[in-house]
Amino acid sequence: MQVGLIGLGKMGFNLALNMKDHGHRVIGYNRSPGAVKKAEAEGIAGVYSLDKLVEKLAPRRVLWLMVPAGKPVDDTIEKLIPLLDEHDIIIDGGNSNYKDTLARYRKLREKGIDFVDVGTSGGTEGARYGACTMIGAEDSVFSYLEPLFRDICVEGGYLHTGPSGSGHFVKMVHNGVEYGMMQAIGEGFEILEKSLFDLNYREIARVWNHGSVIRSWLMELTEKAFAGDPKLEKIKGVIHSSGEGLWTVQEALELQVPVPVIAQALFMRYRSEQEDTFSGKVVAALRNRFGGHAVEEKQPD
Amino acid sequence: MQVGLIGLGKMGFNLALNMKDHGHRVIGYNRSPGAVKKAEAEGIAGVYSLDKLVEKLAPRRVLWLMVPAGKPVDDTIEKLIPLLDEHDIIIDGGNSNYKDTLARYRKLREKGIDFVDVGTSGGTEGARYGACTMIGAEDSVFSYLEPLFRDICVEGGYLHTGPSGSGHFVKMVHNGVEYGMMQAIGEGFEILEKSLFDLNYREIARVWNHGSVIRSWLMELTEKAFAGDPKLEKIKGVIHSSGEGLWTVQEALELQVPVPVIAQALFMRYRSEQEDTFSGKVVAALRNRFGGHAVEEKQPD
Amino acid sequence: MQVGLIGLGKMGFNLALNMKDHGHRVIGYNRSPGAVKKAEAEGIAGVYSLDKLVEKLAPRRVLWLMVPAGKPVDDTIEKLIPLLDEHDIIIDGGNSNYKDTLARYRKLREKGIDFVDVGTSGGTEGARYGACTMIGAEDSVFSYLEPLFRDICVEGGYLHTGPSGSGHFVKMVHNGVEYGMMQAIGEGFEILEKSLFDLNYREIARVWNHGSVIRSWLMELTEKAFAGDPKLEKIKGVIHSSGEGLWTVQEALELQVPVPVIAQALFMRYRSEQEDTFSGKVVAALRNRFGGHAVEEKQPD
Amino acid sequence: MQVGLIGLGKMGFNLALNMKDHGHRVIGYNRSPGAVKKAEAEGIAGVYSLDKLVEKLAPRRVLWLMVPAGKPVDDTIEKLIPLLDEHDIIIDGGNSNYKDTLARYRKLREKGIDFVDVGTSGGTEGARYGACTMIGAEDSVFSYLEPLFRDICVEGGYLHTGPSGSGHFVKMVHNGVEYGMMQAIGEGFEILEKSLFDLNYREIARVWNHGSVIRSWLMELTEKAFAGDPKLEKIKGVIHSSGEGLWTVQEALELQVPVPVIAQALFMRYRSEQEDTFSGKVVAALRNRFGGHAVEEKQPD
Repeated sequence: MQVGLIGLGKMGFNLALNMKDHGHRVIGYNRSPGAVKKAEAEGIAGVYSLDKLVEKLAPRRVLWLMVPAGKPVDDTIEKLIPLLDEHDIIIDGGNSNYKDTLARYRKLREKGIDFVDVGTSGGTEGARYGACTMIGAEDSVFSYLEPLFRDICVEGGYLHTGPSGSGHFVKMVHNGVEYGMMQAIGEGFEILEKSLFDLNYREIARVWNHGSVIRSWLMELTEKAFAGDPKLEKIKGVIHSSGEGLWTVQEALELQVPVPVIAQALFMRYRSEQEDTFSGKVVAALRNRFGGHAVEEKQPD
Repeated sequence: MQVGLIGLGKMGFNLALNMKDHGHRVIGYNRSPGAVKKAEAEGIAGVYSLDKLVEKLAPRRVLWLMVPAGKPVDDTIEKLIPLLDEHDIIIDGGNSNYKDTLARYRKLREKGIDFVDVGTSGGTEGARYGACTMIGAEDSVFSYLEPLFRDICVEGGYLHTGPSGSGHFVKMVHNGVEYGMMQAIGEGFEILEKSLFDLNYREIARVWNHGSVIRSWLMELTEKAFAGDPKLEKIKGVIHSSGEGLWTVQEALELQVPVPVIAQALFMRYRSEQEDTFSGKVVAALRNRFGGHAVEEKQPD
Repeated sequence: MQVGLIGLGKMGFNLALNMKDHGHRVIGYNRSPGAVKKAEAEGIAGVYSLDKLVEKLAPRRVLWLMVPAGKPVDDTIEKLIPLLDEHDIIIDGGNSNYKDTLARYRKLREKGIDFVDVGTSGGTEGARYGACTMIGAEDSVFSYLEPLFRDICVEGGYLHTGPSGSGHFVKMVHNGVEYGMMQAIGEGFEILEKSLFDLNYREIARVWNHGSVIRSWLMELTEKAFAGDPKLEKIKGVIHSSGEGLWTVQEALELQVPVPVIAQALFMRYRSEQEDTFSGKVVAALRNRFGGHAVEEKQPD
Repeated sequence: MQVGLIGLGKMGFNLALNMKDHGHRVIGYNRSPGAVKKAEAEGIAGVYSLDKLVEKLAPRRVLWLMVPAGKPVDDTIEKLIPLLDEHDIIIDGGNSNYKDTLARYRKLREKGIDFVDVGTSGGTEGARYGACTMIGAEDSVFSYLEPLFRDICVEGGYLHTGPSGSGHFVKMVHNGVEYGMMQAIGEGFEILEKSLFDLNYREIARVWNHGSVIRSWLMELTEKAFAGDPKLEKIKGVIHSSGEGLWTVQEALELQVPVPVIAQALFMRYRSEQEDTFSGKVVAALRNRFGGHAVEEKQPD
């Protein structure tokens, strides 16, 4: 299949190589030309404008977007619309909010352009050697693209989740579960670290991956992390987040689904980004007021 | 009533003055003599040994302990036992764990000494001008002491909660509720502080105390805290804890009572005492492993 | 002051009486005429259409909306716009989302109509005998209305929180804090109820209101609740919610403020509305799969 | 190796078969003779008393306990002590609390008996075909037993975690992480179930196991659960627990480690066992008191 891949960042670049390995003709485009050059060096055909990209693709064109969620997706779609023919296909393979996806789908359907949302998991390694994809699409469009998904995913690693939006929705929830799992692992190791025993975290992660109930890819990565830095002394425990955990909690709130674990995992990320908290100041001040408990005073900078 | 008050710290000292104001003959003792001297300067009779204290009290002696929970309570009781007569009364007015109280009660009952547990709330100000007490005691012992409780508490501010242990138990749960309330207030003000509006926290605490659903003494203290430091710039949000919140959660766990709010309030205190977290490092390392997300590196000291 | 009060439900009706008691000339309107009749029986002037209401008010008209949040507010405003003159004032005294308030303010400003948001706390009793109000308004509009607020609120119980939207915003956060406080109280009493002691909940709530750190109006209400039903045997623990707790958590998420306590309080409400949970089924099924732990089978209806 | 296996329940029975498959001479004992008979039917040598068991084993005897945590472990050890010789080995392969393990180790060391704690994960299937074991033991005792562990565990699936107690400790934390992971999965599927999409849960669990970040054994089990009951309509969402999650949270509290996710997972289990809650009644009663919000009345039985 011929694919125009827009966005050659970590994920897009790896996906392009993955497609190429499976015999697909990928033409790569990136807003900043450096990434195109890097792709060309790896044998990916590159172009330096969207016009050129569309021109080079034969209809029924397949354009796979791998750009940051939000405005970049909208901007790219806006630019593509006048260039495309009816039933050309735009795939959004990024982490878009499924509500945006639904709106884009409706807009593109009016223009006669097919729109597919693909939630892509497995990290950069998955993108390169076998991803996991959750695909929201009309049946006929999915069927048309299925050979591509079969090739770039691990065996069994793609699913037509349902109509437009469902791919990004299922991927969003996947990430919410991921937040909870990761925080659970983090908490477990912090208990180990504070315990009276002198434990080897890497070995524990390793043994937990061999036959235990919690064996998982995340635990494999935990082992690797400890292999490189046995007590994680080189890094800070600051955990950023890119949106999908937040959206999962927001969705749960709208649906009135109690998600204490996923929400706490998110809050602990936010907390990790704070050096000090206003809530903590209020509580410390209150303790001082009623019990005369000492407060820690801020040192002048 | 004649009362031997053991422990003249913030709470004990204020209680002694409170008792004296109401015509009770207080004799104060403290392990370190400085506190006794300070009490004497305020007109409280002082002694410099437990023997002297017991000697000066006429039977049926009443000994009110206001010493830190744990070993200091046990040590004091051990020293008192050989000095006391049958049906003398030891009152533990501190924040002891109610399970320790039950054990002490059983031990002292065998010696014929009456033991009463008093959970004391209201902070140092309450101790001085009208406390709130929750009293675990045998009926006849409670009746004997009731005039004292009536005098030193605000009107309506004492309760015979039941048999031995129940006073400290109810006080423990009181503090658990307090943890949850304080954290709720803290979270609310942090939202205000991060909002797009430029708000006057002191004025908001003030208006919330005049007719709103959440009017409360804690909100009055919140107003005072902001009166002294409008944005709490002078203090750090580090929240220590003295045990009763922890015990409340431990008790809830044993009783299989879900206490998400009280437990989270406790966890946020523990979190506030950490500069960095091992759990956060683990999660940050995992994100880096699967998604190539940057980690924040620790700077060499 | 002459006030057109739109919406004579529990809160609006009580506010009308409150205003009348303080010498304001209230004209009441309600969509369903029954509530108007009830108000007239209490000496409130009533009208049966918005046109009539506006006609009866002399400019600078003051229209106080006390209608459910959302569409009813928008519908009422839409109907009022063509009837009003420049600098007439619409007050939204209900629990509107502050973002809706901001949008309405912008829209009405274009029409030259002044718009004020009033967060009203204190329950139905407060509405009747002295409310607590948080007021978002332009300075000059607030000044014009201040005598009204002074009269209907308890002393000290009104605050000009800032520009448009801030009144509803501060009230929203107030309710978030309320959720956390209430859940903390609930958890505390559940521990008491499961404990080995045979406790008198009403008496405990009473004593906690006399001098303790957690004395509060909510604890007074707790005492009253137990006075009427000592073990709350007559009611179910199903806790509905009307939106502001949800909005508080949503706002916190957008601002990246960790609100574990307020969020958990909300989740426990949602959980209380569920008879069974899908999440619980999944976990139970998993335990069964790996450990052979028995699952509870659903009985056929 | 010759092994006396005490306790032929689900786990013990499978472990016995597993050992036998690998050429170890297992002699099985169970308090109730039925389980011994069942084991004999599978070719396991059986005995009907502990005396007989010890008699049949040649020193250095290895006795592997697979009995319920708590009293059964203590009772069995008490009965074994007078029967054993110095440096015979007792292995506790069950889910004992590591603090009990430490006490038992100290007691047995005084008697000259070696004691080893083995945390066993992988469920009944793992016990049968390859477990995951975390082993607390003195070095020389571990070395003596290592061939046995190598045989009965999956490749890489055993670890000498450290001295006595550490095996059960690490297993306890493992289960805490498991609680968090399972609740995260449960919450995710509940969001899917409440969503506007009509999703195939089994297929989603399947695709998440092929290349996604959250691929894991628990997700494989999730797929199997949905394979047998696509919407889990046959079971109730009641989640019991057997102690290790509770202990993990208790340990975290003692170590002052914030574990919001593991604790919430535990609380949601407790909550699932409640039909109604006292905390919910209190909050519902409060809402009724201040806002006139309707409460749901309990129907007479």
